[in-house]
Amino acid sequence: MEHLLSCEELEKEDIDNLMSLAFKIRETLRRGKKKFSALRGQCVVNLFFEASTRTRTSFEKAGKFLSADVINISASTSSVKKGETLIDTVKNLDMMHPDIIVLRHPCEGAGETIKPHIKASIVNAGDGCHEHPSQALLDAMTITDIKGSLDGLNVVIAGDIVHSRVARSDIILFKKLGANIFIFGPSTMMPRYPEALGVSVLKTFEEVAEITDVLIMLRIQLERLNAKKVFPSLREYSRFFGLNRKRLGMLKKDVLIMHPGPVNRGVEINNDVITADRTFIFDQVENGLAMRMAILTILSKREKKLLEEIDA
Amino acid sequence: MEHLLSCEELEKEDIDNLMSLAFKIRETLRRGKKKFSALRGQCVVNLFFEASTRTRTSFEKAGKFLSADVINISASTSSVKKGETLIDTVKNLDMMHPDIIVLRHPCEGAGETIKPHIKASIVNAGDGCHEHPSQALLDAMTITDIKGSLDGLNVVIAGDIVHSRVARSDIILFKKLGANIFIFGPSTMMPRYPEALGVSVLKTFEEVAEITDVLIMLRIQLERLNAKKVFPSLREYSRFFGLNRKRLGMLKKDVLIMHPGPVNRGVEINNDVITADRTFIFDQVENGLAMRMAILTILSKREKKLLEEIDA
Amino acid sequence: MEHLLSCEELEKEDIDNLMSLAFKIRETLRRGKKKFSALRGQCVVNLFFEASTRTRTSFEKAGKFLSADVINISASTSSVKKGETLIDTVKNLDMMHPDIIVLRHPCEGAGETIKPHIKASIVNAGDGCHEHPSQALLDAMTITDIKGSLDGLNVVIAGDIVHSRVARSDIILFKKLGANIFIFGPSTMMPRYPEALGVSVLKTFEEVAEITDVLIMLRIQLERLNAKKVFPSLREYSRFFGLNRKRLGMLKKDVLIMHPGPVNRGVEINNDVITADRTFIFDQVENGLAMRMAILTILSKREKKLLEEIDA
Repeated sequence: MEHLLSCEELEKEDIDNLMSLAFKIRETLRRGKKKFSALRGQCVVNLFFEASTRTRTSFEKAGKFLSADVINISASTSSVKKGETLIDTVKNLDMMHPDIIVLRHPCEGAGETIKPHIKASIVNAGDGCHEHPSQALLDAMTITDIKGSLDGLNVVIAGDIVHSRVARSDIILFKKLGANIFIFGPSTMMPRYPEALGVSVLKTFEEVAEITDVLIMLRIQLERLNAKKVFPSLREYSRFFGLNRKRLGMLKKDVLIMHPGPVNRGVEINNDVITADRTFIFDQVENGLAMRMAILTILSKREKKLLEEIDA
Repeated sequence: MEHLLSCEELEKEDIDNLMSLAFKIRETLRRGKKKFSALRGQCVVNLFFEASTRTRTSFEKAGKFLSADVINISASTSSVKKGETLIDTVKNLDMMHPDIIVLRHPCEGAGETIKPHIKASIVNAGDGCHEHPSQALLDAMTITDIKGSLDGLNVVIAGDIVHSRVARSDIILFKKLGANIFIFGPSTMMPRYPEALGVSVLKTFEEVAEITDVLIMLRIQLERLNAKKVFPSLREYSRFFGLNRKRLGMLKKDVLIMHPGPVNRGVEINNDVITADRTFIFDQVENGLAMRMAILTILSKREKKLLEEIDA
Repeated sequence: MEHLLSCEELEKEDIDNLMSLAFKIRETLRRGKKKFSALRGQCVVNLFFEASTRTRTSFEKAGKFLSADVINISASTSSVKKGETLIDTVKNLDMMHPDIIVLRHPCEGAGETIKPHIKASIVNAGDGCHEHPSQALLDAMTITDIKGSLDGLNVVIAGDIVHSRVARSDIILFKKLGANIFIFGPSTMMPRYPEALGVSVLKTFEEVAEITDVLIMLRIQLERLNAKKVFPSLREYSRFFGLNRKRLGMLKKDVLIMHPGPVNRGVEINNDVITADRTFIFDQVENGLAMRMAILTILSKREKKLLEEIDA
């Protein structure tokens, strides 16, 4: 694995390796061992053209726990403002010998665009409405953790599918792992050709309730829904599609509730659901750190070294 | 000591331990030894919802000098903007296995609010107009350094008492250490019930001059005083309450002048006073680094390890 | 060498030492060895009052690759906003025991101003329109790398000379190294007294083409030229002074094309020139990292320790 640009190009073997390593890392972290020297001498650059707490922090911690040198660059302080192109910015960074560039960018395909120009490995940490593969990997890890595997599971993704890179990456990855994917939400947020994505559209919450093994609630982008003349409004979304205690009660007893965060409490998901014992939102965050440590390790080809440290 | 949330809850024993360790650290730093491995494998998150150079830098250096992994998060790049609650932000961080969260927040009691939800230790680095305990500890350290102890000293705090978390923390801590606390300033900046704080109000600079062993000048918040119709104006404040060379001459010969910084030269304190030999503003900054190293070490329960390194 | 404030005060011996060490570092980086412990226990503060990606990142990587503790402070989060003076900000930082302060500031002479007040070494990373010595050093390194030396070379600097700290530092440094310096550009961007700088003004591109061994294209500050009533406009600049493939063809076959970046493609320099094999813009970035590692090492007096690691 040279880069992590999309779930589209991930091989089954890569997924298995990442998942297996991530579980080992998580157990080690839980035992309180957090500092490894496996990536000493590696340099990870977090190049973020969009604001982010969770993903940036997760990759920064992942790098630091592995003893990599981590450099954060955010667009607001960047020479982009001075008129530099993305390719020049990245080529310049590349001349300073980074090993991995973690890139978040508002444009679809930003990572693919820069790939031919640089020597460093690229991790796509979200590119527009396209993909967010590390999120899908941590989601798959969370499901595998509870259910043993995704094979044959019915996964329902609910919310603004058409604008969500998380939905896109989840769909692609989960299908590779054998899950059946359904989508649910206001018609204005559904893709025009769901069959092209290989997913089925559910029309009512009753349909959702009947089949769902895993329910992934997406974040509603307040700024879009607050705009006038958009359907649905926040109140409508919450009323007709928000997950509350009553709807949770309609679901299977062993359902998994997930959310990529940050959560809008009271919009897509209610307070009492967040704390319910079928909800694994905070587990996703913990798994995210372990998965990102696995990603950085495998891209650096330091897997063997890390395993030695874990077993020591 | 599990957290450092307020001076209110600090035990005398904690104060003594922190102070004693901080003095040892300071001497070691002064000898040029600045890198310790006592906190290797610990992770410190600086979570700042308000701008800060000094406090953030001080905690960041403290962590790095002790070999902790330090992660900075500022509200401007944070998912708070996307509608996430403080508790969710912090719970998410907590799932990434930090050991200490250093929190600055505009709301009183922010640290108390998140405490039940997380495993990490919390350091309150300023919560609204409530408390700023690490500042009070470094102030107490500075006074102890010069005067031997606070017991029986007359400490006067001058300025905008009612809006100052530093004043509040100083008052609470210094009283525990046996000092008598007085306040001085425009009546619009005095608390309504000074007796509830256990302090006496001085009316004239002559009164101040007569009794003061330690004079702490607070920062005047320019943005508040620049607003129209506020009394006093900047010029009035400077004229009637600013510390200049003449007023300095009225004070006891062995008085201590302190200021938590950043200083507005020419408003609350004049240039020639800042450089006077009774002024210890820059000592406070140096002591601040040592005190924050002591705080992080004791919260991590690595005191013994650090002392071995200091003595080595 | 105690500070690096300007090329003006650099001795020939300092330049030789920096250059020689930087070349050794670069070769080591190219062999894939990027982590040294020479500056372990040293603390480098990047204090940037102006936005910067390249320079800040370059110094941050330089410090981290050498195992220094690196602290970034940008003006936007700084107590400067609260009314603190530059000298107080820096004196406060200095009390926290940094070894090197890398300072970028919009005012000419900022580094000189703070020097008497602090114990740390200062690196001027750009002060207004005055100097940017680390850029000039990496430029000299790039030329030396290709041409063997600057002695007797004709170096032409093209663009907004009068507002460029890079031009100023290049001119001063390159003259010390024996080069002949010429300047070229719109008359509104030329200094009033070029002879005071010891440079000659070229009037036409034909003159440039005839003599140039090294051509340094400066960045055009879009924000200045976009303003109305400024001569030339962006289009005029590009048409009459921009370097395109045709003009490149008029230059000597072994000319060096350089640019301090970030580049405005299509304004001062065209796409097809950036990728031409006489263009060394990306080499400058790589050399910049090595040069900054050399600067930090020599200011820390850890040259011997680093050489041992390089040779190990």
